[in-house]
Amino acid sequence: MGFCLGVDLGGTNVKMGVFYEDGTLRDKWEIPTNRANSGASIPRDIAESLLERTERLGISAQDTLGVGIGVPGQVWPDGTVDAENLGWERFPLIAGIEAATGFPVAADNDANVAAAGEYWQGAGRGYNSLVLVTLGTGVGGGIVVDGQCLSGAHMSAGEIGHVQVEPKETLRCACGGFGCLEQYASATGCARMAREELHKTSEPSVLRGLRDIDAKAVWDAAKAGDRLALRVADSFCDYLARGLAILAHTVDPEIFAVGGGVSKAGQLLIDMTREKYRSLALSFCRDTPIVLARLGNDAGIYGAAAMATQKLK
Amino acid sequence: MGFCLGVDLGGTNVKMGVFYEDGTLRDKWEIPTNRANSGASIPRDIAESLLERTERLGISAQDTLGVGIGVPGQVWPDGTVDAENLGWERFPLIAGIEAATGFPVAADNDANVAAAGEYWQGAGRGYNSLVLVTLGTGVGGGIVVDGQCLSGAHMSAGEIGHVQVEPKETLRCACGGFGCLEQYASATGCARMAREELHKTSEPSVLRGLRDIDAKAVWDAAKAGDRLALRVADSFCDYLARGLAILAHTVDPEIFAVGGGVSKAGQLLIDMTREKYRSLALSFCRDTPIVLARLGNDAGIYGAAAMATQKLK
Repeated sequence: MGFCLGVDLGGTNVKMGVFYEDGTLRDKWEIPTNRANSGASIPRDIAESLLERTERLGISAQDTLGVGIGVPGQVWPDGTVDAENLGWERFPLIAGIEAATGFPVAADNDANVAAAGEYWQGAGRGYNSLVLVTLGTGVGGGIVVDGQCLSGAHMSAGEIGHVQVEPKETLRCACGGFGCLEQYASATGCARMAREELHKTSEPSVLRGLRDIDAKAVWDAAKAGDRLALRVADSFCDYLARGLAILAHTVDPEIFAVGGGVSKAGQLLIDMTREKYRSLALSFCRDTPIVLARLGNDAGIYGAAAMATQKLK
Repeated sequence: MGFCLGVDLGGTNVKMGVFYEDGTLRDKWEIPTNRANSGASIPRDIAESLLERTERLGISAQDTLGVGIGVPGQVWPDGTVDAENLGWERFPLIAGIEAATGFPVAADNDANVAAAGEYWQGAGRGYNSLVLVTLGTGVGGGIVVDGQCLSGAHMSAGEIGHVQVEPKETLRCACGGFGCLEQYASATGCARMAREELHKTSEPSVLRGLRDIDAKAVWDAAKAGDRLALRVADSFCDYLARGLAILAHTVDPEIFAVGGGVSKAGQLLIDMTREKYRSLALSFCRDTPIVLARLGNDAGIYGAAAMATQKLK
């Protein structure tokens, strides 16, 4: 069986994995992201680490199908990458890793790659299409249909965080828009809604005692039955459900997976969202499963390896 | 060159076309839809009409690549069709036409088929992806990416009319939801908004003199500078633009085409929608062209023929 290499390039670390062609993880590790010199050494760092590890594992070059890589930015059709975080504009990442490893390299945006990972070996395993919504500082996502990530004509497909769910919003989103999903169903949005709710009433809440309110505190309080926190959680899930219903009426995936830091809130978040989703979705897609993502921080290396098997074989 | 046959099955008429493989129309005609007996004769009616016409045109069976057909309902993976309008539930349409013609037959929902037509030979010609939004009594749509229609896991992909654009709406949509795009950006929605606006103020308007207000009257008045009608037109385009921005952030097509009866309002509708869309879309997809659909009522036969060439060759 062949092997494929998955790379998840982040601003702090580069996660890497060696996978059997069938999706079984053989080994994983990470190296720091060297951002010095506008990240000029990153392609070589990645290549050397991959070559050293595969050699140590006794995997020959001819058994290596290729490398997939998820990047925190845009991948252009010519293989160059824009990543604000790393100071990259049209950076020749793919060519650099191909030259240094001799392997074919495929790259895509990290949100799409995570969706590909969940599709291949996570929550979407056995399904033909999946939408992954990632609830972190912001809201990201990826859409996979029949094994292909939708990238979009301007690399904006799956920009689920910027789907408008509250047209009357007066606060501006980081993107410049108003009422984006990310303004509510993210860690930041959750904490903001809690602060607003605390400000609006004098109702007792365990959240009042806290110096810093974050999404985890809100969800912990909600689980403990704090009524104010439950209202915030309810709003959070209402907005998320609106976003999922919009995805059902445009892309209509076979399953929704919810990942990212806030998804650690777990089954309560899923159950509340599912109930609200059912009241918003057309009857045909009312029963689309909504589940927790399964691969956590490894979704990126899985998805990158999936790209290597699918696009490069 | 081979030929492909496109069929657009409606509740009143069946439109049919013979196309050269490259998309050139050779001949088109229509026959009445015989709804008697739960439409039992429809497969045979279509088959006989196709065979008679191709024979008259001197096209041999071996030069005929196949038949595509757009239906006003759902096509199941086993080739049976649900169409409320015709009283069909799991009706064996594909098998019926295949048996009676000897040609391979492909079928899809008529909204998807119209999108495929615009993609192949209409507004989307030369583009890799297109979303068609059809503004009629309701709002329909279809999404084509890399030559494939997105059907969705429950045949709800491209149900653009039921994307929620006004979460605060208290009127219920026909689908049971609240605030669906179809409640505003359709012929019905346009007339309703005009009536509401007339009721709300005593402002003079040419619309006040009319016994029946329809979308055409509203757009004609708007073009003539009627301020009340212009406000309604403005709302109409605002909602439509919200829907398009949502599509840009999920599917991100290369071009949007706007068709259906209300699109006869023409360039004013397009220009107003485009301006609003630009303020709602992420910068990457702000310049996605929004254009009028080009094939009018022939989109269905073109798209059906496209399916015949693509899926059956």
